[in-house]
Amino acid sequence: MFVPIEWQTGGKVRFLDQTRLPQEEVWVETSDYRRLAEAIRRLEVRGAPLIGISAAYALALASLESKADDNVGLLADMREAADVLRATRPTAVNLAWALDRVMKAVAGAGCIDDIRKKAIDTARAIHEEDIAGNQRMGEYGAQLIPAGGRVMTHCNAGSLATGGYGTALGVLRTAWTDGRLAHVIATETRPPLQGARLTAWELLLEGIPFTLIPDSAAGLIMRRGQLNAVVVGADRIAANGDVANKIGTYQLAVLAHENGIPFYVAAPTSTIDLSVPDGDHIPIEERSPDEVRSVRGTPIAPEGIDAGNPAFDVTPSTYVSAIITENGIAHAPYEVSLRAVCEGVATRG
Amino acid sequence: MFVPIEWQTGGKVRFLDQTRLPQEEVWVETSDYRRLAEAIRRLEVRGAPLIGISAAYALALASLESKADDNVGLLADMREAADVLRATRPTAVNLAWALDRVMKAVAGAGCIDDIRKKAIDTARAIHEEDIAGNQRMGEYGAQLIPAGGRVMTHCNAGSLATGGYGTALGVLRTAWTDGRLAHVIATETRPPLQGARLTAWELLLEGIPFTLIPDSAAGLIMRRGQLNAVVVGADRIAANGDVANKIGTYQLAVLAHENGIPFYVAAPTSTIDLSVPDGDHIPIEERSPDEVRSVRGTPIAPEGIDAGNPAFDVTPSTYVSAIITENGIAHAPYEVSLRAVCEGVATRG
Repeated sequence: MFVPIEWQTGGKVRFLDQTRLPQEEVWVETSDYRRLAEAIRRLEVRGAPLIGISAAYALALASLESKADDNVGLLADMREAADVLRATRPTAVNLAWALDRVMKAVAGAGCIDDIRKKAIDTARAIHEEDIAGNQRMGEYGAQLIPAGGRVMTHCNAGSLATGGYGTALGVLRTAWTDGRLAHVIATETRPPLQGARLTAWELLLEGIPFTLIPDSAAGLIMRRGQLNAVVVGADRIAANGDVANKIGTYQLAVLAHENGIPFYVAAPTSTIDLSVPDGDHIPIEERSPDEVRSVRGTPIAPEGIDAGNPAFDVTPSTYVSAIITENGIAHAPYEVSLRAVCEGVATRG
Repeated sequence: MFVPIEWQTGGKVRFLDQTRLPQEEVWVETSDYRRLAEAIRRLEVRGAPLIGISAAYALALASLESKADDNVGLLADMREAADVLRATRPTAVNLAWALDRVMKAVAGAGCIDDIRKKAIDTARAIHEEDIAGNQRMGEYGAQLIPAGGRVMTHCNAGSLATGGYGTALGVLRTAWTDGRLAHVIATETRPPLQGARLTAWELLLEGIPFTLIPDSAAGLIMRRGQLNAVVVGADRIAANGDVANKIGTYQLAVLAHENGIPFYVAAPTSTIDLSVPDGDHIPIEERSPDEVRSVRGTPIAPEGIDAGNPAFDVTPSTYVSAIITENGIAHAPYEVSLRAVCEGVATRG
């Protein structure tokens, strides 16, 4: 495991700029919440759980930065910062979840110092709970991987997408430690290539054997019968089990279904949005066409052409074999099982 | 339409180096068949029909280059050249088909000059017939596109993949001229990005409106219900209708099937290999992992990691709505219909 963001004593946040991986490991230190908002927008930090953690830390920074001299002023400044952070990316629900949790924690605080302390403590708690939750998720999920398992994953749902352990890659990490996992197939995940850049980097660090493939080769690999499971993360899960995740997830799910391969989603309960009935109600972020027209600065298409760049897609729950959370594994019918795993959190917290 | 290869008087071949597109339009002139063999291997010329045409021209160059002073010696030199050319790429059957056709044409020639003339004439005939055949194919295929049609295509099966008109893109070209086509969705087609580089370049040249998408976004576009058909080319079609084509084709076919979208394959009868019973018997070329680990020279993954790079996949005929040839449209059962369209050629030739 690898921790991609840290709260520093003295009121700073230090994070790994993931856009530079795997060629360079560049860390950024900031006390400015706007810099963290920019990092979220620019994918320097990415992955639904890590976006949530980063936003919580950013809000803690905003509480320190505020020049307000009473609670009302400080809370107003924090609400303003929360609005800026909330607008950075629309799909992952963990962002709003984390901001709401910090704002709720500070609502009843006694004085300015107390607000600041509560903001920092809550952000750190969100981070620590994420790691612990991922580890529990890993243990639940690893049981779904058969001995000698060959598993495909998409995008990066690892240490770099979370507080440090990983959701889908956390499941694979645990399965590897348990001796059940034999080989990972990592899809490169165009446009930003989180599979080629980040998942490959993590698996190498961990010593887990893997093969990188273009997104277009996933079907062939499945059809050759060399795969035991697909495990991916999620950015938002609707009440009916529809899963918004990195663009390309839907087609992997259809292909897995067609080839009789189990398709698992690993995500913390903070990714489940019971207020959204189904996937059609999840906003899908459309990013700049430049990410499609070029690869890491190299143009790959005629200049200025029209390009579509939806960052996520929705996988209908009918294609999802199970959803692995830190509170257990949810199976269809998801309307019932997702509510149960979410209540698991409520009773505990 | 755009002609990517030409026979030059004086015994030279001039071809467009497609690896430099779309940034540069570089033409190469050579009288050395080995240079053309290298061009085929390096994807400077690519696309099943164009590979066949290039190989035929290369064999004509070999006949001119030979120092042999009798028919036996010249034919031996040509057979040697044919072996070199045949070994360049394994999947597209048009390569062997074109070489065999030239060798058959020269077999009964009277003298050295006659052999050379017949080799050149046959290569030029293959080229001209390809263009004429593509145009007929375009007319058959365009009828399958509904008015206002929005059509997805994969890789490049256009002017740049053929003698000059195109198979899948030829169908779209004719549908556009007929006023039936509204919009094309072009998949970028990693690793060599023939969609982003070549199809985009051609559609721009032609003024056909299009949107470039990452390979991973195809499923989302289909699921949104904005697509009337998928049309792709082929590198080899087995007797039962299984289609070997650019990696990623199989998954587009599965997704089209799942979303109720017709999936058409456009290919000349020279791409149909009745000697191969089904797709499992078609050799699939595995190319260098470097094409996956980098994009146009820019590294995108940790150095030296394992990467899979199958250049083609096989789409089972059950997913293929129809196969469009220059002799008409074949429907299931393909065992019968493909034989019929192939005999169409035999009776005419």
